Amino acid sequence: MSNVKVLPILEPETEPCCPPLNERPLTAEEAERTAVMFKALGDPVRLRLFSSVASHEGGEACVCDISDVGVSQPTVSHHLKKLKEAGLLSSERRGTWVYYRVEPTVLAAMGALLTKAASA
Amino acid sequence: MSNVKVLPILEPETEPCCPPLNERPLTAEEAERTAVMFKALGDPVRLRLFSSVASHEGGEACVCDISDVGVSQPTVSHHLKKLKEAGLLSSERRGTWVYYRVEPTVLAAMGALLTKAASA
Repeated sequence: MSNVKVLPILEPETEPCCPPLNERPLTAEEAERTAVMFKALGDPVRLRLFSSVASHEGGEACVCDISDVGVSQPTVSHHLKKLKEAGLLSSERRGTWVYYRVEPTVLAAMGALLTKAASA
Repeated sequence: MSNVKVLPILEPETEPCCPPLNERPLTAEEAERTAVMFKALGDPVRLRLFSSVASHEGGEACVCDISDVGVSQPTVSHHLKKLKEAGLLSSERRGTWVYYRVEPTVLAAMGALLTKAASA
């Protein structure tokens, strides 16, 4: 018996947040919801932190794993929380540390907004 | 003879700005460049304007075409200029009006950052 947890492999589904950006003008409500996600990635430090989590071994990281973006640990925590509030990261506490991982469905939805708009 | 201009159909190419966000942590310089684009879409009004241009007939629009986002024409102009500065729109003056259109290569590059990160 192995004690390695086997997680089901889920295909990231595109969340039905909004149509591609070139299909029709977004409504005010759709734009409010979607802008929050883009804004979260619209800061260089948050973007570096996000790519640090996304590219970390196992696809998850805690503050303790991230030390090379030139900001203090409380600042790292603050930005990771912002990314979580925007729906881009999920988190789980294990002992002392909170571990963050990327929300693939949200990313896929954001990507679809852009790539479908780009290729039409 | 037709006087309709036939433009070559170009496949949007992904600009080699950065790797997908889950490949490795972005460098400070990559993050600075990329955050500018996300930030431009991180405002609800700009996002609505962007989708208005992207979904307008012929894939282009001038300020004169956009009147339904609840802000004044100077504000529309201001935001369109911001989107242009971020590389998301290109513009061309024709007579009185400046026409804006979506930059598909930039959008494709942003989309690739996200969708490749989502599906890995």
